[in-house]
Amino acid sequence: MLQYDKDMNIQTLKGFRDFLPKDVKKRQFVLETLKKVFESYGFEPLETPALEYEEVLTGKYGDEGEKLMYKFTDLGGRKVALRYDQTVPLARVVAQYQNELPIPFKRYQIQPVWRAENTQKGRYREFLQVDIDTVGSSSSLADAEIIACTLDSCRKLGLEAEIWVNDRTIFNELKLTKKQTRILDKLEKIGPQGIFKQWQEVGIKNPKETYNKILQSPSTARLNEIFKYLEAKNFKFQNDFKFVPNLARGLDYYTSTIYELKIKNGGLESIGGGGRYDNLIGTFANSGISAVGFSFGFDRLIEELSIKGLLQDQEKIKSFLVTTYPGYIDRSVKIAKELRDIGAKAEVYLEIDNEGNPPNYEKQIKYAVKKNIQSAVFIGPNEVKNGTVTLKDLKNKTQKEIKMEELSSLLDSKPKNI
Amino acid sequence: MLQYDKDMNIQTLKGFRDFLPKDVKKRQFVLETLKKVFESYGFEPLETPALEYEEVLTGKYGDEGEKLMYKFTDLGGRKVALRYDQTVPLARVVAQYQNELPIPFKRYQIQPVWRAENTQKGRYREFLQVDIDTVGSSSSLADAEIIACTLDSCRKLGLEAEIWVNDRTIFNELKLTKKQTRILDKLEKIGPQGIFKQWQEVGIKNPKETYNKILQSPSTARLNEIFKYLEAKNFKFQNDFKFVPNLARGLDYYTSTIYELKIKNGGLESIGGGGRYDNLIGTFANSGISAVGFSFGFDRLIEELSIKGLLQDQEKIKSFLVTTYPGYIDRSVKIAKELRDIGAKAEVYLEIDNEGNPPNYEKQIKYAVKKNIQSAVFIGPNEVKNGTVTLKDLKNKTQKEIKMEELSSLLDSKPKNI
Repeated sequence: MLQYDKDMNIQTLKGFRDFLPKDVKKRQFVLETLKKVFESYGFEPLETPALEYEEVLTGKYGDEGEKLMYKFTDLGGRKVALRYDQTVPLARVVAQYQNELPIPFKRYQIQPVWRAENTQKGRYREFLQVDIDTVGSSSSLADAEIIACTLDSCRKLGLEAEIWVNDRTIFNELKLTKKQTRILDKLEKIGPQGIFKQWQEVGIKNPKETYNKILQSPSTARLNEIFKYLEAKNFKFQNDFKFVPNLARGLDYYTSTIYELKIKNGGLESIGGGGRYDNLIGTFANSGISAVGFSFGFDRLIEELSIKGLLQDQEKIKSFLVTTYPGYIDRSVKIAKELRDIGAKAEVYLEIDNEGNPPNYEKQIKYAVKKNIQSAVFIGPNEVKNGTVTLKDLKNKTQKEIKMEELSSLLDSKPKNI
Repeated sequence: MLQYDKDMNIQTLKGFRDFLPKDVKKRQFVLETLKKVFESYGFEPLETPALEYEEVLTGKYGDEGEKLMYKFTDLGGRKVALRYDQTVPLARVVAQYQNELPIPFKRYQIQPVWRAENTQKGRYREFLQVDIDTVGSSSSLADAEIIACTLDSCRKLGLEAEIWVNDRTIFNELKLTKKQTRILDKLEKIGPQGIFKQWQEVGIKNPKETYNKILQSPSTARLNEIFKYLEAKNFKFQNDFKFVPNLARGLDYYTSTIYELKIKNGGLESIGGGGRYDNLIGTFANSGISAVGFSFGFDRLIEELSIKGLLQDQEKIKSFLVTTYPGYIDRSVKIAKELRDIGAKAEVYLEIDNEGNPPNYEKQIKYAVKKNIQSAVFIGPNEVKNGTVTLKDLKNKTQKEIKMEELSSLLDSKPKNI
């Protein structure tokens, strides 16, 4: 029926990735941790379709976004586009279901987005976005909650991080345009001198003076309230959160507070950002709707956790390979079931030849080692005679014969209802 | 910056769905349960990109599939297609990473697929596939494991189900063509008389006789082995699994065993199917690679669990709204933090007006009820004076004042490290 074509392309598209089990497991571990923190703050999960009407997405992401969006015409002649971010779909959802949703609507969303980025810059064309947003609240409590939830997420992952906070209304006071604000966002790349030069080109006559005014700006009333609430949550000023008056952020749509999450003990690299955007959501709903949110750079987060060795111990459940022996395979099947019943991961070695015989132990163990299975269980004629099984720790290479009844003691923890 | 366009389309595309929090929570609960069962059997997670080179997918799904696939040309002029199923990407992965993967490769995959189906038939154009497959084993142990894992999945969800099993080599013995087999798959829709009629049209001279021969076929050697292993796992013949010699399944690519999962206590509706397909995977790898798998109809499964009331108690963690009182908001913030620290979900009511005052309790409680939050906590001048909080059960409407120190006793279970 199917023909093998030796010239068939078996590659993934540039900028797209397969995640093999060891990677998915790490990513799932991090996502589960994040979800639990988000939910502990009352954020609830939302999912939107991968495809939207093109007109829902166009005009929202600027020229750059327009260029990078995956657009096409479907079989029914509809102009459609792949999800480019999760904020515009959130805006659509808020408009579409406004009577069903609690207000403020606190949602988290974890779905892939697609952007035809230049892959040479180390960017992906399909990547996961991890967002928390509170829609319909202009309260500084909402800002403080987003910041606290972000910091708690890092703590739960074992990552030392701090959050830089600013308020763009400072720039408004100084009459900085959006364009001039975007230039300030390049500070870490081009330094103050670079900023001064570019600012001059776009009409700032005394760039150094303007920069110094920014640096000397006091924090706004909103920021002071946010900081007070963060302190009530036991977060420490200067250690957990900082007021950084020259923090700018690249996105046009932020209207007030802006945040950037920075890794400690390193180059203070950014692994996410957010802020308040009080005009975007209303685009769909024909009314002013305040919103504040944060987006984790998930790939950067995974990378940072990997470097710091924080993704090692994500496997909490003991795992077993139950090996097989000619004539005793159904015993192995039973033992694997018993191990699963007491909450372990347990699989029987599957391969048998045409005579119903499994390969030697060596080959079976090799499979277990390749899969990072922790222990092997042997059951053959001797063990059946003695009413035992032989247990081998595949890490320490130690081996012992134990009674069948002791099987459940193999698990440190109590039986779990898996 | 952004203009509201009152004629803007804020609908989702036909066949595409938003999942609001209450739905996502149900779906996540079911998926977490399934993942745990899959992992307990040693299946590991795989993820592949949403977009593939079109040539990877074409020629694999027959004329029907070709017609329903979402295809387009990307900005780089590449012909690409959206994931249509998870089996072809699995085949590509096995070919591409053959040296890295353990063999047999036991993977589960849970990702959306896209098909431009006729939505009038109640079908979706974006839906989640939930697959388990074992690649690289021709062993009947592998078949038995897939069946056992499927049945265990239903049990863990509280769903009574049975699995129908057959072996297509029975049809080979009787010289049934693929086309004639596909006709037999319509049995539940058109009945035996309908089958006889259509069989006659495609060259079967004595359809009734052929049908009776099928019904009287004994189970094959492979089936007998599978049944033996299933019994070793305590599954019961006729109750948990049945030999159904006239079970056909629609897909062309099955080569031997086929399975269909049926709901008990109802119309014996199918909520998934699978089988052995020993020729498909090799298409990419230029060699014969055996495989066996099962695919859950996730939307049907959710529907069935809903009907049977099995999605009610998925919320295991206690949830609180900490209300706010003018001048005491930072107290509320602290209490919410303490509740989260002992493993609860707890959020502070966020809204405050320009003078820093929250709305009345009634409005705050309304928000909590809309969000299905279980309890409300009040802290105002009286409570602060008494060193207490007032706790209201939002379901029973009961209310009591408790000491601050008793907060942790609000949780039935011990503090969890969330």
